[in-house]
Amino acid sequence: IKSKLPNVGTTIFTVMSALATEYKAVNLGQGFPDYPMSEELTAKVAEAMKNGHNQYAPMPGLIGLRESLAEKVEFLYKTKVNPDTEITITPGGTYAIYSSLTTILQPGDEVILFEPAYDSYIPNIEINGAKAVPLPLTYPDYKIDWDLVRASITIKTKAILINSPHNPTGSVLDQNDIAELKNTVAGTDIFIVSDEVYEHLIYDGLPHESMLKHPDLFARSFVNFSFGKTYHCTGWKLGYCIAPAAFTKEFRKVHQFNCFSCFTPAQVALAEYLKNKDAYLSLPRFMQQKRDYFIELMKQTKFDLLNTSGSYFVCASYGRISDESDKDLAIRLSKEAGVATIPLSAFYHNHKDDKVVRFCFSKQNKTLQQAVERLIKI
Amino acid sequence: IKSKLPNVGTTIFTVMSALATEYKAVNLGQGFPDYPMSEELTAKVAEAMKNGHNQYAPMPGLIGLRESLAEKVEFLYKTKVNPDTEITITPGGTYAIYSSLTTILQPGDEVILFEPAYDSYIPNIEINGAKAVPLPLTYPDYKIDWDLVRASITIKTKAILINSPHNPTGSVLDQNDIAELKNTVAGTDIFIVSDEVYEHLIYDGLPHESMLKHPDLFARSFVNFSFGKTYHCTGWKLGYCIAPAAFTKEFRKVHQFNCFSCFTPAQVALAEYLKNKDAYLSLPRFMQQKRDYFIELMKQTKFDLLNTSGSYFVCASYGRISDESDKDLAIRLSKEAGVATIPLSAFYHNHKDDKVVRFCFSKQNKTLQQAVERLIKI
Ligand SMILES: CSCCC(=O)C(=O)O
Ligand SMILES: CSCCC(=O)C(=O)O
Repeated sequence: IKSKLPNVGTTIFTVMSALATEYKAVNLGQGFPDYPMSEELTAKVAEAMKNGHNQYAPMPGLIGLRESLAEKVEFLYKTKVNPDTEITITPGGTYAIYSSLTTILQPGDEVILFEPAYDSYIPNIEINGAKAVPLPLTYPDYKIDWDLVRASITIKTKAILINSPHNPTGSVLDQNDIAELKNTVAGTDIFIVSDEVYEHLIYDGLPHESMLKHPDLFARSFVNFSFGKTYHCTGWKLGYCIAPAAFTKEFRKVHQFNCFSCFTPAQVALAEYLKNKDAYLSLPRFMQQKRDYFIELMKQTKFDLLNTSGSYFVCASYGRISDESDKDLAIRLSKEAGVATIPLSAFYHNHKDDKVVRFCFSKQNKTLQQAVERLIKI
Repeated sequence: IKSKLPNVGTTIFTVMSALATEYKAVNLGQGFPDYPMSEELTAKVAEAMKNGHNQYAPMPGLIGLRESLAEKVEFLYKTKVNPDTEITITPGGTYAIYSSLTTILQPGDEVILFEPAYDSYIPNIEINGAKAVPLPLTYPDYKIDWDLVRASITIKTKAILINSPHNPTGSVLDQNDIAELKNTVAGTDIFIVSDEVYEHLIYDGLPHESMLKHPDLFARSFVNFSFGKTYHCTGWKLGYCIAPAAFTKEFRKVHQFNCFSCFTPAQVALAEYLKNKDAYLSLPRFMQQKRDYFIELMKQTKFDLLNTSGSYFVCASYGRISDESDKDLAIRLSKEAGVATIPLSAFYHNHKDDKVVRFCFSKQNKTLQQAVERLIKI
């Protein structure tokens, strides 16, 4: 069998979660919460199943859910999107990004993305026969170098893939980035594929600069979201893609022959639950407390935390601890300290090693405390 | 935007289900049950959510579920498969087939399949830059013409896509077909992608000739299944792919960057529920009764039902009613008679019209009765 993805091993999230289980490590690796999700929401799903909502949802998703999403988008971003023609429910944010890229990419196309980058992006591009053009974010503030972007655009550039709040670094696009992005793509027919799964995990009062807020950018965008990240249920694998009608039409052609439709009972439940604005408006404060708590605790260790303004991740440089590779350190942290992390080299096509590991702080305070107690000893 | 699937419109299942809703038609179109699924199973999912199983499952699926599946496979097909390396849980059977094809296909490859064919197959092949080679099943018994298969194999033939029990016709592979298949692929490196989502829906005491029963065939196969079709919950979108370890390794590379993992609570529930053998062993009898009931009722109409030995579909020729196209008839049946069906031309790349429509009989007796009362008037 000839590999479709010869450069790909098992995703780092699987590797580190397996190590975490093997060594009974506190898992601050893969991004998921360890506290309970809303009981109201799980009860609604149970009710939907009981009420017989167990057969195929419509291919684009339940219209009630799409209408609730359109209302939410208008409320948050002052943009009207058409639930009928511009929103598609997907089995997760990762799938939405994969489908966005599969919709637009032809062999030979190029896609500009920024590293460190979520590890599905490059394989998603390559499986479509297209070429990934990874550009480094600046270090250590992980911002986009827009001059470098402009210098990297060629006649083959089909899309720019952006991600804010950013996994793994927690950097966020600001108004200057938006102005630069507008300026960079103006007059081109470059698409934007936007990964906004951490839309509500943004701190210090910063606004989320969604592509949905900027009509001229939205007009060329596939904007991808995750219910799992917002409602503390990453295992539900439910997300959505918002894109202009002409794009959505093509996106759905890909989706209808890939997964076709998504878990119906959760769609029924979320259609209602989404109306509870507080559930997402309270999220930045809730998660910022966790971030601040973790940052404070980590001062007792020899890790130097980098800045994070969004997502549920914070990166840490460990130069004061050792000069081993970030992967070696991450493995040793799992085995010896009993704390799982993600080495940042996993987010670079060339495994660039800045001696940085990522911690996930969407955990109970006692979990964070236990992890730090262990990390102090390293 | 340049279409990745220029030949593709909205899938017929969406079109006909929308018509069914619009005209309040009895929906015998898209394949799903209208009776309740097991309350025990929905209760188990509710419990799993309550117990906090709401975060990412491992990428290949919950090991407990894969172990239960391996036990089931050994019990049914006397084959040992390794749950760790040969089974992957997927968001549905359609996705499993898409991923199987995406795993093996390179641009220029050819895939032999049989028409009428489930409408995702050809787009799945074409989106990978490969070429579909659709061969007609014989009419009206819808069997494979093995001489034609052998004559159609070229140096580019990468795979043969088979589906038994067959959607939309209900034909099933028999031992002779298996012998022909073995004979046809012997000495080649042709893969088999097998769609066995109707594994338990097989009648008149016929055995299901799974690729899993035949070690020499399994050694070259991706075998795809659906929990939705077995447990009357098509809206759960959960299935799985069984393939030899070397194939599964490549399959998972594709899966891990497409959907990554599947709805955790249902995996927890099914890991347990699968041990209830009666839930699947009773299925052939349960569904055969529906088939026989529907066939009996339909004698009052002018439709001539074709033979069906599996799946939950039966095809009907309508030459005694009209000579309009099957699509026109299907639309008229929805609008005027109030019964939704699927025109068989939707399952042919060239929309070949044998004047046949498909009925789905996985419905409550009263639904079937109501449909037939309406069809009598046509
Ligand atoms: C799909 S596993 C990755 C989860 C995640 O968002 C992360 O840990 O980066
Ligand atoms: C994914 S919709 C198709 C459902 C089905 O199996 C059918 O109706 O053929």
